[in-house]
Amino acid sequence: MKARASDLALQQSGLSAVLEDFLAVRQATLDLCDGLSPEDCALQSMPDASPVKWHLGHTSWFFETFILEKTIPHYRHFNREFRVLFNSYYVTVGERHPRPERGLLSRPGFAEILAYREHVNTQMEHLLRRRGMLSQELTDLIELGMHHEQQHQELIVTDLKHLLSRNPLKPAYRKSPQKTSEATATTQKWHAYPDGLHHIGYDGNGFFFDNEQPRHRVFVGEHELAHGPVTNAEYLAFIADGGYTRPELWLSEGWDTVRAQGWIGPLYWEQRDGDWTAFTAFGMQKIEPAEPVCHVSYYEADAYARWARARLPTEAEWEVAARNASADGNFADNGLFHPQPGQALHADQEPSQMFGDVWEWTQSSYAPYPGYKTPAGAVGEYNGKFMVNQYVLRGGSCATPRSHIRATYRNFFPAAARWQFSGIRLARDS
Amino acid sequence: MKARASDLALQQSGLSAVLEDFLAVRQATLDLCDGLSPEDCALQSMPDASPVKWHLGHTSWFFETFILEKTIPHYRHFNREFRVLFNSYYVTVGERHPRPERGLLSRPGFAEILAYREHVNTQMEHLLRRRGMLSQELTDLIELGMHHEQQHQELIVTDLKHLLSRNPLKPAYRKSPQKTSEATATTQKWHAYPDGLHHIGYDGNGFFFDNEQPRHRVFVGEHELAHGPVTNAEYLAFIADGGYTRPELWLSEGWDTVRAQGWIGPLYWEQRDGDWTAFTAFGMQKIEPAEPVCHVSYYEADAYARWARARLPTEAEWEVAARNASADGNFADNGLFHPQPGQALHADQEPSQMFGDVWEWTQSSYAPYPGYKTPAGAVGEYNGKFMVNQYVLRGGSCATPRSHIRATYRNFFPAAARWQFSGIRLARDS
Amino acid sequence: MKARASDLALQQSGLSAVLEDFLAVRQATLDLCDGLSPEDCALQSMPDASPVKWHLGHTSWFFETFILEKTIPHYRHFNREFRVLFNSYYVTVGERHPRPERGLLSRPGFAEILAYREHVNTQMEHLLRRRGMLSQELTDLIELGMHHEQQHQELIVTDLKHLLSRNPLKPAYRKSPQKTSEATATTQKWHAYPDGLHHIGYDGNGFFFDNEQPRHRVFVGEHELAHGPVTNAEYLAFIADGGYTRPELWLSEGWDTVRAQGWIGPLYWEQRDGDWTAFTAFGMQKIEPAEPVCHVSYYEADAYARWARARLPTEAEWEVAARNASADGNFADNGLFHPQPGQALHADQEPSQMFGDVWEWTQSSYAPYPGYKTPAGAVGEYNGKFMVNQYVLRGGSCATPRSHIRATYRNFFPAAARWQFSGIRLARDS
Amino acid sequence: MKARASDLALQQSGLSAVLEDFLAVRQATLDLCDGLSPEDCALQSMPDASPVKWHLGHTSWFFETFILEKTIPHYRHFNREFRVLFNSYYVTVGERHPRPERGLLSRPGFAEILAYREHVNTQMEHLLRRRGMLSQELTDLIELGMHHEQQHQELIVTDLKHLLSRNPLKPAYRKSPQKTSEATATTQKWHAYPDGLHHIGYDGNGFFFDNEQPRHRVFVGEHELAHGPVTNAEYLAFIADGGYTRPELWLSEGWDTVRAQGWIGPLYWEQRDGDWTAFTAFGMQKIEPAEPVCHVSYYEADAYARWARARLPTEAEWEVAARNASADGNFADNGLFHPQPGQALHADQEPSQMFGDVWEWTQSSYAPYPGYKTPAGAVGEYNGKFMVNQYVLRGGSCATPRSHIRATYRNFFPAAARWQFSGIRLARDS
Repeated sequence: MKARASDLALQQSGLSAVLEDFLAVRQATLDLCDGLSPEDCALQSMPDASPVKWHLGHTSWFFETFILEKTIPHYRHFNREFRVLFNSYYVTVGERHPRPERGLLSRPGFAEILAYREHVNTQMEHLLRRRGMLSQELTDLIELGMHHEQQHQELIVTDLKHLLSRNPLKPAYRKSPQKTSEATATTQKWHAYPDGLHHIGYDGNGFFFDNEQPRHRVFVGEHELAHGPVTNAEYLAFIADGGYTRPELWLSEGWDTVRAQGWIGPLYWEQRDGDWTAFTAFGMQKIEPAEPVCHVSYYEADAYARWARARLPTEAEWEVAARNASADGNFADNGLFHPQPGQALHADQEPSQMFGDVWEWTQSSYAPYPGYKTPAGAVGEYNGKFMVNQYVLRGGSCATPRSHIRATYRNFFPAAARWQFSGIRLARDS
Repeated sequence: MKARASDLALQQSGLSAVLEDFLAVRQATLDLCDGLSPEDCALQSMPDASPVKWHLGHTSWFFETFILEKTIPHYRHFNREFRVLFNSYYVTVGERHPRPERGLLSRPGFAEILAYREHVNTQMEHLLRRRGMLSQELTDLIELGMHHEQQHQELIVTDLKHLLSRNPLKPAYRKSPQKTSEATATTQKWHAYPDGLHHIGYDGNGFFFDNEQPRHRVFVGEHELAHGPVTNAEYLAFIADGGYTRPELWLSEGWDTVRAQGWIGPLYWEQRDGDWTAFTAFGMQKIEPAEPVCHVSYYEADAYARWARARLPTEAEWEVAARNASADGNFADNGLFHPQPGQALHADQEPSQMFGDVWEWTQSSYAPYPGYKTPAGAVGEYNGKFMVNQYVLRGGSCATPRSHIRATYRNFFPAAARWQFSGIRLARDS
Repeated sequence: MKARASDLALQQSGLSAVLEDFLAVRQATLDLCDGLSPEDCALQSMPDASPVKWHLGHTSWFFETFILEKTIPHYRHFNREFRVLFNSYYVTVGERHPRPERGLLSRPGFAEILAYREHVNTQMEHLLRRRGMLSQELTDLIELGMHHEQQHQELIVTDLKHLLSRNPLKPAYRKSPQKTSEATATTQKWHAYPDGLHHIGYDGNGFFFDNEQPRHRVFVGEHELAHGPVTNAEYLAFIADGGYTRPELWLSEGWDTVRAQGWIGPLYWEQRDGDWTAFTAFGMQKIEPAEPVCHVSYYEADAYARWARARLPTEAEWEVAARNASADGNFADNGLFHPQPGQALHADQEPSQMFGDVWEWTQSSYAPYPGYKTPAGAVGEYNGKFMVNQYVLRGGSCATPRSHIRATYRNFFPAAARWQFSGIRLARDS
Repeated sequence: MKARASDLALQQSGLSAVLEDFLAVRQATLDLCDGLSPEDCALQSMPDASPVKWHLGHTSWFFETFILEKTIPHYRHFNREFRVLFNSYYVTVGERHPRPERGLLSRPGFAEILAYREHVNTQMEHLLRRRGMLSQELTDLIELGMHHEQQHQELIVTDLKHLLSRNPLKPAYRKSPQKTSEATATTQKWHAYPDGLHHIGYDGNGFFFDNEQPRHRVFVGEHELAHGPVTNAEYLAFIADGGYTRPELWLSEGWDTVRAQGWIGPLYWEQRDGDWTAFTAFGMQKIEPAEPVCHVSYYEADAYARWARARLPTEAEWEVAARNASADGNFADNGLFHPQPGQALHADQEPSQMFGDVWEWTQSSYAPYPGYKTPAGAVGEYNGKFMVNQYVLRGGSCATPRSHIRATYRNFFPAAARWQFSGIRLARDS
C-alpha cells in the first residue's frame, strides 16, 4: 500500500529510518500505559472495547504473524498460544479467541505481555539490521504494522476511558493542564464551495490504507461548510431546546436508540442540579462551553444538524475542504487526550480544526471506492469486509497520533458508537 | 409531490379519473385477500411483518387521517380508537400501537375492518364527487395515499408468505400456473457503459416520492451491467462451491449473520436428501433453475457477487441503465407472486428484467439526495427518517403493482432483510 | 389412576355413564367459545399462553393419541399432521410444534378444528358404545382425558383473558352480572390447629392425579389459618403502605422481578388519577374491595404475608384444613369467571372459600411425595417432570370446573406466574 | 446466633480467643491468594461469580459496617466510597454497586485492597484488645463475620476456578499432589433407616446460621442412603448410557437446560477422541474414576438418580444420617481443592464422605423451617430472602474450611448452578 517513489526513498536511506520509526511507534504505545496498574490494563468494559493488555499483545502479534513468522526461518514464537489469543478478526490466519471474552484473560499478565513486546521488538530489530534489502512487500507490511499500531494507540485511550468511566471512583488518567486563558465560544462562520468534479482518494507518495483508493472522480454540488466543529455551548442549546425529547429531529433508528438507552446527552455527560459535567481524561469535569462537543453518535450528529437547519457533510465535501486546511491540531502527541477550544475567528480562509480534537461524522456510509479491490491474503481483511452499516469519520482526534492522519484518511464506526472522540462539523446546501 | 403539468391534467379531467383510480387501488387490495381466512389475516409472524388485517386498516387510516379528517367538517370517524391502532410510525400524528404487538389484536375482526374500509371508501367518494375542485395539496395527498396503499399491497403478499411459511402444513396462497415450456437458464451477458456525468432522480410529470428528488448530477465511472438477474442455477453453483461456509466471501457482519442464523441458502429454501425446495406462493416447490434467485439479503447478494468476481451496481448505475430498459415485466398484476425465468438471449440491446420479478439490491446505502428537504408535516415522516443503515433496491418485483414502479423509484431495506422478493443483478468494473 | 372400587362401579353401570360424562366435558369446552371470533381463538399473547384453538385441538389430540390410535385397528386420523401440531410436551409421543409458535398457525382454521373435535367425538362414541367391556387401563385413560380437558378449560379462560387484556379496546368476554347487594369486606378471623401427624394425599375411590399419591405421613406443627382469602381492600392497604417499593418485604428474586417488570399492583390492575381499575371478564372494572385479590404471583403473595406479619400455609396445612371445609364455591360452572366476595362472618367453624374463587399459593415447592413413582409411558410425563422450581396452589378458582377439584388436588406454577386466578390465604405460627 | 453456654465460655476466656480466631480466618483468606497476580484477582468471569479482590474487600466491609462503624465513635473509614463498592446485597445498608459490574473495577487495586484489609484488622484488634467486655450482640456479629468470611473463602476458590477455566491457557491454581496409590472405585452399598419422627435443626452450643433453626419435628419415612457419593466411574456409565441424550431421564426444565447450554457432561469436562478430561485446580487432568463426581447441577444429580433407579435424599434424611457420620473429610484446610476417592469398604456402620469432598444436592427446596423468623436489621438479609427457587446442599466440600461445616448446615444454590463443588449422594425408598 505504498507508492513506488516513497519506497525508493525508503530503501535508499537503508532500513535504519524504518527501524527508528518502528521503535518510536512501539515506545509510544508503552507511554500510554504510564501510570496504569496491571488491573487497569486487564479489564474489558464492553464487547466493543478491549483490555489495554490485549492491544499491547495484538499489535505485537501483528508483526509476529505477518512479518517475523514469514521471514525468519524456524522463527521461535514467544508463545505459540498467542496466535489464537491475539488474533483480532483475521479469519484467514486461523482461530480467534472471542472478542467479548478478552476481559476473561488474567494470564498472560501485564509483565509477560511486556516481555512479549520486547521479544518481538528484538526480533524485528535483528531483521531490520541484518537483512539488508527487504522486499517491497515486506517493507509495506512493516509500515502497515506501524499504522496498525497507531490505530490501536487510539483505541487504548478510548477503551481505557470507557473502563475508567464505569468505576464509581471516576479515576483520572492524566493530570489536568493549567488553563492559560478563558476561551470563548465563537460565532459560527461558513465557507462556500462551488460545484465541480473532484478527484477523491489518495494519490501521494506516502503510506495510505487500501480503502483510500482508487482515486476517482466525484461530482460535488455547491455547498457550504462550517468554520469549526460544533461546540459544547451550541450542543447545550440543542439539549435545552428539547433536542433529546423531540422525535421529529431524529432518524427513526436514532430515536429508538435514544429511548432504549435513555440518552439525555453525549456519552460521559451527567447532569446534577441543572449543571452538566462529564467524565474526561482528568476525571469528572465541568462542561467547557468553548470546547468541541465530543462522544456523540451519528444519530446525535444528524439530529443536531437537523435542529441547526444544516446537515452533515459528505466525505467528498470534507476531503475537498481538508486539502487546503491546516494539518496542525490537537493530537495524541500533546498528551491531553481531550478536545480543545478553537481559536478566535480572524480572517481565516479555510475551515479550522479539520484535523485533531474530534473525529467528524460525515453523512457517508462506509463503502468501497469505485474499482476498489480487496488486497490478497490476510491484509485483505483489514478494511473491505467492514464496508456495510458503518459511517465515515474524518480528520482524527485528540487521541490520534499526528503522523497517522491525512486528508484522505477514512475512519468508520457504526451509527450508535459513542466511545470514540467523535464530534460534528456542519454543512449546508447553498 | 406531483409536478405541475400532471396536476393540470388531473384537474382538467375533473376528479372522476382520480376516483376511478382510487376505487381500483382499494379493490386491488381486497383482491389479495381472496381465499384467506380471518385467521390468515390476523396473525403476525415476526416484528418486521404485520397482519394482513392491519394493512387493510392502516391504508384506510391513511386516507381518514390525512384527507377526510382534514377536509370534512365534523368528520365522523368509524372508530376513534383506530387512530392509535392503525398509525404505523407517524409520531406527529400521535400515539401508536406498538408494531410487534399488531398480532395481539383479535378485535377489530376481519369483518369489522372491511366495514371500516367501506366507510372510508364511501366518504372518499363523497368527497371526490361533491367537492368540485380540490386543492393541489389534497389531490397530491390522495395520490400519495394510493401509492402508499400499493406499497402495502406488496407487504400483504410478503408478510402473508412469511406467515404461511411458518406453518408446518405449508399452505399454498395461489394455484400454481401450468408450465408452458421448459425454460433454460441463460448464459450471462454483459452490457458496457462509458463514464459520464448523469442526472439522477425524478423529473417527469407523474407521481414520485420525495426521496427521488432533487434531481442532481452524479459522476458514474466506466462499468458493465449483467443482462439479467442471477438465476437459481447460478446461485446453486455458489452454494455448491461452499458459498455459505467460506468467510472470505462475506462482509464481516454478513458472516456473523450467516453463523448466528444458521443460513445455508435463501429464505424459504430447504434441502432434503440433496434436493433443494422452497416455500412459494404455490406451497413447497422444487427449485426452478432458470428463475431469478429470490429472498436473499444484501449480505448474500454481496457475497455472491464477490464469489462471481463482480459487485453489486450503485443505484446511479442501475438508474442510468433502467432508463432505456423495457418497463414490462412480471408484476403483481399477473397474480403469480413468483419470479419467472427470463427469455432466451437474442440480440438485446438493453438489460432485461430490470422491472418486476425481483427487487435488485444495489450497493448504495439509502441516503438523501443532495439538497433533499424533508416535507413539512406528517408526510415528512414518510421517507427521510429511515435514511440510515438501509440499502437501496430497484426495479420492483412480482409482488409490486405495475403502475407503482419507475426507473427512479427507491425501495430500501436493512442488509439482513430477506422476506421481500429481493434478488441480485451483477455489475463489474470494465 | 383410579382406585379399584370406583372402577367396578364404572363397569357395572356399563359405559353409558362414561359416555355421558365424556360428551358433557367436550361440550363444556365448546361453551367457553361462545361469542368468540375465529381471530379470538387463533392468537397467542405470550409463550406461556396458547391460542384457544390450540387447546381445542390438543384436548382432542389427547383422546386420539392415547385412546383411539391404540384401540381402533387401522384408525383413520382426521389429519396425521395434527400429531405434531397438537402435541404439547409428550416427548415420548414424538416431535412437537414449538410452544411459542402456536400463535403462528392460521391453519387449521377454527371451523376445521371443530370438525376435528367432532371426528374424535364420533370415534369415541363408537368406541364406548360398541366395545362392551373396556380394559381398566383404557377407562382410566378416558377419565384422565376428561380431567385433562377440564384443565385446558381453565387455561382457555386464563389465556383468552390475557390476550384480550393486551388489546387497547379492552373487550369483555362475558356480560357483567347485576350486583344484588353491596358486599362488605370482612374482618379477618383465624382458625387454630394443634400439632400432629397427618396422612396427606389421596385415598378415596374417585379420580386423582399421580402427584396426589402416595398417601403418606407428615408432621404438622401448631398453627393458625385465616378464615378467608385476602381481599382487594386488604391488598390495597399493602400497596398504600408502600408494598411495591420496600425491598425488605420481598424475597430477593421477587424484588428483582418487581423492578425488572415495573410491577405496581397485581396483573391487569391499572391506576389512573389515584383510582384502581382492573381488566376482568367484563372488561375494565373498578376494583371491588370485598372481592378476593387475584392474579398475584408467589412473590407478591409472600411479600403480602410478610407485611401482614403472617406467612403462606404449607400444602399439608392447607389440605388438613380443607378436609372439613365446604367444597361449595364460585366455579367455572357459574359462568362468571371472576372471584366473588365472601359471605359475612357467622360462627363458622371452618375456613371459608377454600374452594373456588382463587387458587391459593402455598409456600410448598412442588415436589414428589415420598415414594412417588412416575407412571410408565407417555402418561408419566403428565406431572413428574415438572417437579422443580414451581410452587403448589390449592383449591381451584372461578375458572375451574366444580367436578375437577378436591382437597388433595395439587396445582403448580412458577413463582412469577400471574395470569392464573391466583390469590392468597394467610397462615401464622401460634 | 450463638447459644448462651458458648458465649459464657467466650467471655470467660476473655477476648483473646476471639482475636486469635479472627486473625486466623483473615489470614486463611489471604493464603488463598498465594501465587495469584493482580489480574487474577480483578477479573469476573460471569455474573454469578465475583473477582477475588471483591471478596477480599467485601469480607472487610462486613466487619467495618456491622462492627467497627457501630462500635467505635468517630470511626475513620479507610475509604467511604467502599461502603457502596463492597456491599453485596444488603439493601438496608444502602446503595450497592451492581453485581455484574464487579469486574469493571480496576481501582481500588490489589495492593490497596490489602491495605484496606490491614486497616480493618488493626481496628478490630484494637477493639478486641481494649474494649474489655463486648456486648453479646457484638461478639455474635464478630463470629458471624468470621463464618461469613469462610463462606467467601469457598467462593474465592470456586470463582477463581471458573475464571481460570475460561482461559485457553488453562493455568493451574495449585500443584498437583503426588498420587500415593491407585484408588479403585468401590461398589455402592446402602444403609437402611426406619421411619420415625426426628428433630431437625441446630440445638448445640456453637455457632449456627439462622436458617438452621428453629429445631422442629419432621416425619421421615423408611428409606436407604448410599454409602458414598457417586463416583466419576459411575457417572461415566450414565453418560455412556446416553444420559445426556434421553429426555425421559430429566426434569423438563433440566432437559431444556441441557439442550440450550449444550451440556454433554459436568462443568469443566471435555471429551477429546473419546477420552474425558477436566479442568481442575491442577490444570487439565484425566478424569479419575474413583473420585466423587463434581460440578453437576441439581438437574444432572436428579437425572443421574432417576437413571440409577434411585432418588436424591431429602435434607431431613441427610441430616439424620449425618449425625452419626464422621465429620472428618477432605476440606479446604488440605489445600487440595479437589475431591478425593473414598476409602475401600470395610464394615462401615455409617455412610462415608458425608463431610468434605463435594456438597451433596438434596431434593429439598430451600425453605424456612417452621416458625423461622427473619432476624432484625441487615443481618436479616443474610438467608431468609433467598428462600425461593433454590435447592439445599449439605456436607461441605474440598473448598470448605473444616471449622465451618456441621450436620445441620444448609447451603443452597439454584438448580442450574454447577460452579460449586457439587456432587451426588443417592437415596431410595425401601
